[in-house]
Amino acid sequence: MSDRKWVYGFGNGAADGAATMKNLLGGKGANLAEMSSLGLPVPPGFTLTTEVCSAYYEQGKAWPDGLRAQADAALKTLEVQAGKKFGDAKSPLLVSVRSGGRASMPGMMDTVLNLGLNSQTVEGLAEMSGDRRFAFDSYRRFIQMYSDVVLGLDHDLFEELLDEHKDIQGYEADTDMLAEDWEKIAGQYLALVEEELEVPFPSTASEQLWGAIRAVFDSWMNERAKVYRMLHEIPADWGTAVNVQAMVFGNMGQRSATGVAFTRNPSTGEKAWYGEFLINAQGEDVVAGIRTPHALTKAAREEMGDKQISMEEALPVVFDELTQVFAKLETHYSDMQDIEFTVEQDRLWMLQTRAGKRTAGAALKIAVDMVGEGLISEQDAILRIEATSLDQLLHPRLADGHTNVILTKGLPASPGAATGQAVFTAEEAVLRAGQGQDVILVRVETSPEDIHGMHAAKGIVTARGGMTSHAAVVARGMGRPCVSGAGSLQINAREQKFEVAGRTVSEGDIITIDGGKGHVLLGAAPMVQPELTGEFAILMEWADGQRRMKVRTNAETPEDVQTARDFGAEGIGLCRTEHMFFEESRIAAVREMILAEDKAGRITALDRILPMQRGDFVEIFQIMGDLPCTIRLLDPPLHEFLPHTAEDVAAVAEATGIAVDALMKRAASLAESNPMLGHRGCRLGISYPEIYQMQARAIFEAQAEVKRETGVLAQVEIMIPLAATAKELQILKSWIELEAKKVTDELGDAPTYQYGAMIELPRAALCADKLAGPASFFSFGTNDLTQTTLGLSRDDASSFLGEYVHQGVFEKDPFVSIDEHGVGQLIDIAVQRGRAARPDIKLGICGEHGGDPASIDFCEKLGLDYISCSPFRVPIARLAAAQAAIRNANSKT
Amino acid sequence: MSDRKWVYGFGNGAADGAATMKNLLGGKGANLAEMSSLGLPVPPGFTLTTEVCSAYYEQGKAWPDGLRAQADAALKTLEVQAGKKFGDAKSPLLVSVRSGGRASMPGMMDTVLNLGLNSQTVEGLAEMSGDRRFAFDSYRRFIQMYSDVVLGLDHDLFEELLDEHKDIQGYEADTDMLAEDWEKIAGQYLALVEEELEVPFPSTASEQLWGAIRAVFDSWMNERAKVYRMLHEIPADWGTAVNVQAMVFGNMGQRSATGVAFTRNPSTGEKAWYGEFLINAQGEDVVAGIRTPHALTKAAREEMGDKQISMEEALPVVFDELTQVFAKLETHYSDMQDIEFTVEQDRLWMLQTRAGKRTAGAALKIAVDMVGEGLISEQDAILRIEATSLDQLLHPRLADGHTNVILTKGLPASPGAATGQAVFTAEEAVLRAGQGQDVILVRVETSPEDIHGMHAAKGIVTARGGMTSHAAVVARGMGRPCVSGAGSLQINAREQKFEVAGRTVSEGDIITIDGGKGHVLLGAAPMVQPELTGEFAILMEWADGQRRMKVRTNAETPEDVQTARDFGAEGIGLCRTEHMFFEESRIAAVREMILAEDKAGRITALDRILPMQRGDFVEIFQIMGDLPCTIRLLDPPLHEFLPHTAEDVAAVAEATGIAVDALMKRAASLAESNPMLGHRGCRLGISYPEIYQMQARAIFEAQAEVKRETGVLAQVEIMIPLAATAKELQILKSWIELEAKKVTDELGDAPTYQYGAMIELPRAALCADKLAGPASFFSFGTNDLTQTTLGLSRDDASSFLGEYVHQGVFEKDPFVSIDEHGVGQLIDIAVQRGRAARPDIKLGICGEHGGDPASIDFCEKLGLDYISCSPFRVPIARLAAAQAAIRNANSKT
Repeated sequence: MSDRKWVYGFGNGAADGAATMKNLLGGKGANLAEMSSLGLPVPPGFTLTTEVCSAYYEQGKAWPDGLRAQADAALKTLEVQAGKKFGDAKSPLLVSVRSGGRASMPGMMDTVLNLGLNSQTVEGLAEMSGDRRFAFDSYRRFIQMYSDVVLGLDHDLFEELLDEHKDIQGYEADTDMLAEDWEKIAGQYLALVEEELEVPFPSTASEQLWGAIRAVFDSWMNERAKVYRMLHEIPADWGTAVNVQAMVFGNMGQRSATGVAFTRNPSTGEKAWYGEFLINAQGEDVVAGIRTPHALTKAAREEMGDKQISMEEALPVVFDELTQVFAKLETHYSDMQDIEFTVEQDRLWMLQTRAGKRTAGAALKIAVDMVGEGLISEQDAILRIEATSLDQLLHPRLADGHTNVILTKGLPASPGAATGQAVFTAEEAVLRAGQGQDVILVRVETSPEDIHGMHAAKGIVTARGGMTSHAAVVARGMGRPCVSGAGSLQINAREQKFEVAGRTVSEGDIITIDGGKGHVLLGAAPMVQPELTGEFAILMEWADGQRRMKVRTNAETPEDVQTARDFGAEGIGLCRTEHMFFEESRIAAVREMILAEDKAGRITALDRILPMQRGDFVEIFQIMGDLPCTIRLLDPPLHEFLPHTAEDVAAVAEATGIAVDALMKRAASLAESNPMLGHRGCRLGISYPEIYQMQARAIFEAQAEVKRETGVLAQVEIMIPLAATAKELQILKSWIELEAKKVTDELGDAPTYQYGAMIELPRAALCADKLAGPASFFSFGTNDLTQTTLGLSRDDASSFLGEYVHQGVFEKDPFVSIDEHGVGQLIDIAVQRGRAARPDIKLGICGEHGGDPASIDFCEKLGLDYISCSPFRVPIARLAAAQAAIRNANSKT
Repeated sequence: MSDRKWVYGFGNGAADGAATMKNLLGGKGANLAEMSSLGLPVPPGFTLTTEVCSAYYEQGKAWPDGLRAQADAALKTLEVQAGKKFGDAKSPLLVSVRSGGRASMPGMMDTVLNLGLNSQTVEGLAEMSGDRRFAFDSYRRFIQMYSDVVLGLDHDLFEELLDEHKDIQGYEADTDMLAEDWEKIAGQYLALVEEELEVPFPSTASEQLWGAIRAVFDSWMNERAKVYRMLHEIPADWGTAVNVQAMVFGNMGQRSATGVAFTRNPSTGEKAWYGEFLINAQGEDVVAGIRTPHALTKAAREEMGDKQISMEEALPVVFDELTQVFAKLETHYSDMQDIEFTVEQDRLWMLQTRAGKRTAGAALKIAVDMVGEGLISEQDAILRIEATSLDQLLHPRLADGHTNVILTKGLPASPGAATGQAVFTAEEAVLRAGQGQDVILVRVETSPEDIHGMHAAKGIVTARGGMTSHAAVVARGMGRPCVSGAGSLQINAREQKFEVAGRTVSEGDIITIDGGKGHVLLGAAPMVQPELTGEFAILMEWADGQRRMKVRTNAETPEDVQTARDFGAEGIGLCRTEHMFFEESRIAAVREMILAEDKAGRITALDRILPMQRGDFVEIFQIMGDLPCTIRLLDPPLHEFLPHTAEDVAAVAEATGIAVDALMKRAASLAESNPMLGHRGCRLGISYPEIYQMQARAIFEAQAEVKRETGVLAQVEIMIPLAATAKELQILKSWIELEAKKVTDELGDAPTYQYGAMIELPRAALCADKLAGPASFFSFGTNDLTQTTLGLSRDDASSFLGEYVHQGVFEKDPFVSIDEHGVGQLIDIAVQRGRAARPDIKLGICGEHGGDPASIDFCEKLGLDYISCSPFRVPIARLAAAQAAIRNANSKT
């Protein structure tokens, strides 16, 4: 252990690490090292690796052997590089201590700035900077920040002292404060800490440093970081690195500044620098949205109608240097970069670079553009797009020419449009969304505490903050439309309303936001479906060229089938015939069938259902043409079709003329303790052959009708649900063949169909070799296979599944991504045994996992023939299948 | 196909087949061949193999190629051996056509006798026999039987004609009928058939023969045969053979007779011939119980106080010959034989021999005796006893000195005693038993249609029939006590009562039967537990010497634990701690725990449960001493402990002081769609660590207390239910270790325990290598593993599982015998992976399959360390484990 390298230094054109070492150094540390090696101006520093974090937690929050010595050595090197000394009264070195994980977790973890200040070193800083006010302002900021982050004192306590002082002095703003005011405040702050904690504020730089490092590592396990990781599927054992870096000051007067920039527009993908800066400010001031920042370029300023001077105009020499850095970084990384920089008295310092977060639309445009620019290959472009992000493009946008009142105009922080009830707290958003209502979360500004509310909302509006504010970054990541910095909104969160332009919008009132334009509108507005053209179409074409697996859809209504076809579905993987039974016009006949006392009675009722069911299939076959259609015969237990409440029973009795107590009795006799494991699926088919025979007949007759009318032969695949044994498949197959024979005799033409099984029970997977006798295809029903393999009811698991993922029992929700170790093993077994018994067996997946990129990747590894998902996930599946094919091919070479 | 040998001949001291060919020739055919080869007097004949049956069904009930030719050739040979010709008017050969499967299915399938008679051959028979009355009696019997069995005419039609004729003639009994009466009746029967079916009765012998063969094969699939196979777990694809054999006549006057015999007493096992016979009768007369038969030996006659002459006295020469045959057969087969014979005019013919069915007690005595006689080895003796039959010996018998009124005395047809409500139809027996009531089925005589009622009843009484009547044979097979031939009972089934000795017993009145003595008693009588000594003890000792697997029990009450220990349990395999929670005195505290609003409230309630739970374990540890005790922590979902009906809720609210609506609300919030797959097992332990910690503490404190008091250290195994992942086991292990550490600190002595997992989910089995990290033992919970692997709720499956077994989807009820192909595969995987990861892992089974011999055999093959079952099945498991060990060793050599 003690031989391990825990600490990696960087600075002055060299570094121990590199961009490739993200897992060890975190994203920030790796990129600081990379930038340093590239010769860019990076304040020197060193990184404590993510392995330190893991070791720290494994050993019950103790420092691993060797860490202190390596850090001390790194600090010595840093002092040489910076030309200052840590804790030195004359020439004090100040440092920042920041987290930096493998994945970006903006705002989730703690940071301490200006570390190294005490009553001696503050004097040295005043001397060095020649600005005593700056030095004591920095000191009081440090005390407050350190006390909050490391010592756990509420920052309000400090604000109160400051307000009191300003009142006494009659000051209106912080800018009124003089050097001696800040000095006095710093003294009061120190006294406050000692009074609250009964120990003095740590005065040595070394004590401060290790306190801050510990606090940052501890923040890896704070509640909001855990929630963020859960939402973003980041494993807890990745850990964070900690970066200790020499401070540079953007708040050292009018020749100092701080800013953030993207090398291309993260909202549209346009190839133009896009950023914001503030003169005489620290980086946090830009990100936190406390002051609204200004444009980087003159062109941007003019476009926005901003009167404040741009960086290009204010600091032309440094701006010039910055443009060269931008070009160098984008070429070096072959990707759009998100950059943080500081100008300290005309000197440029690079604080961070990383791949920039972007909207799905921007990601598509950037990827396609970069292929055109020769920066990346088509395969790279495909791999660049997070497949699920396409979801953002598949949902409605605001229709042109709507007549809604525009309440206000803010920044177009995240594209797309949404309509919903205005709510003013994250809690209310979660509550109403849980009740099935659409909500728009309206906040002055958002903080990490609001994340669950943002997730629950359809869209977000903030009164403060820029395009890189917390709200904007998080909303883009989530694919929620967002309008930020809508400063004219007068939000009164306590009274749950806002006022704007003489109008009042209260909680529950409907508003619409257009995240593409930054508009907030009154009432619900008309939406239009997105056109999937341009870069989207280009990239999907590339993806289709790379993809091996076919993509089908799970759909049964003509509307859904048509949507899926428009999205590029290459067949139906799961047509759930029971959904057709629930329709208002047929449920009566279905209930009559269930309530019939004998087979003859059932057949009479089924005869009434037959033409309706046949009509369903005719419509579907007409849309799908000669693409394959997998039709699953009736699956749910019969009691699902009966009324449940006394009211419903009475209504049904009234409507059908069946006596109330007959209804109740039948419902009671059909009730089950565990319907999921009950009398359903092919068990119904075996108990009541006439039901499956009616369904088979409807399919065959529809096939004949469509062929007669259009000349196209529907590619029918009849699928049996919940089979556990080959015998079930054999019995049902013979009945369906009998029906096919009858239809042949009647129509003079034999139905063409394949016969297969839905594999959704562990036994079916284990006995796949046997089932492949009667079945010529398998479709993995991973929803039920997950329920049975894990013994976990999807309906009941919500009470503890979150906690289970949180505690790391499951890496991810197994109903979202296939549990590869358990469920995946069974699928693997079934694939191997099924193929061994029948080499040309067709294999697909039709559980909801069929639209999940991680699961699609797994399906590619297993060599399935197709995936099937809900209509709106078809484009995602097409892209994910292409990515999986590329990755799988790469991993083999 | 056409090369296959379909027909095997036998007779005149030779045979194509042998006793070893049972699967092909059926039991009857194989033993006829064997007896023939042994030189015993067997009427010649031939056997159509079980493969004919299979081919017949496979080809849609068509005869396989080559069969007709082979049968014709066999018939020619038979004619030569018998010295008669089939269909010949002078010297006609008559044959019987009988079924004969691999397993005996008494009375389940069809038989035709006297086949070959027509208006010509009957005259030849009259001539040959010199008895015209006999010839025409045989003829009319043949017409009636053939019409019933082959042509499907109700035999009542024929009875009516006969009754009419007797009325006209003023006859009282069949014995009044003269030759010409029978001749006239035969003519009327032929006319009846032609009138009913509009075709004449088949007149050629050949047409009759193939009609009868077809009818016997068809009867393999009749409803009562299917039910019998289901009850006796006989696969449908075994098929039956058909035996065509020359007729011999026990009804050819006073020097003719027919009888059945056991070479030892099938009820007690005593080494003494045991049989019955009738002079001038056909075999069916004895078995059907129409005439009550007489004793074989003089000694038996005297013991029974029977005044009718015994066979030993009536036919001494033939009897002497018969005794030599008995001795030869028993020595040859090394087993007690069940024999059918006929004497035709002083000539002995052997019609059947087979291993005799016997009571469990008799089986034990015969096996132990035969080891003593040097006929078989100890291993043979162990294998001879059907393990489940021990169940008969483990249940109560009537106490000596009871004072109940003895209503009547019949034959002691099947031992054991039972008390229950008198019922008079099989349907009523099934109905009341289904409602949880004990019933005694009272019938004049039983028939195959009554089987389901006999199965449902605790005991059976018949007014007619002997020790080998249908009722007696079936009851012994089922282990039900039975009194047969209780002739003084005046049964009025229509009015659902019987009268005897001036008393009336109506449906629902309580009676008791003593099958060991043949008594029927009024009211309920005191029972005593059986003493498991004598042959039982000897055989169990032999079994224990052969057994490899340990046998444990599933028990948690001190009574059950003690019973299991007395039955030889070597530990507890499953102590279900939740059963302890349901006790009247604690359920209040348990509910308080569930209704608590926070952890503190739960802990308060758990503190009240702790001493009671500790007391449970103290009692168990005291009984089990240093034998291992596997204790499963809380398993069921919490809502199981809450009241369900409005009444119960009100009562609980009253008793606990908790508001009704608080109770209802909590119950509603805990309700689950599929509780089997819900928030239960270790999921509770993870959500509420305090529950498992309390249980662990109770175990540890009990261990310390018992050690302090008795000096014996309980061998504790803490078992976690429903684990799906290693992580769950790790989390819970750390909490239990924490509790152990606390107890160590408090008591100064560390608890000793093993920690393991119940494997009851497919995922757990598949990931057994991972689970074997934290777990040092696995116990297979095959009940839930069956439910999840097959996706089959045990509570809900009853509506279709019978049909499933019936249609051959499952060979056997998978909740009774392990589904080897599915569930068994998972267990096999878990055993292999668990052992690979932890070579010394302890492996057992604690599902109800642990008491099922077929499943025990499977466990032996997998090399499990122990099986665990309910207390009353412990002896069965001990024996079955020994049998499995012997068979497994034999199959390897």
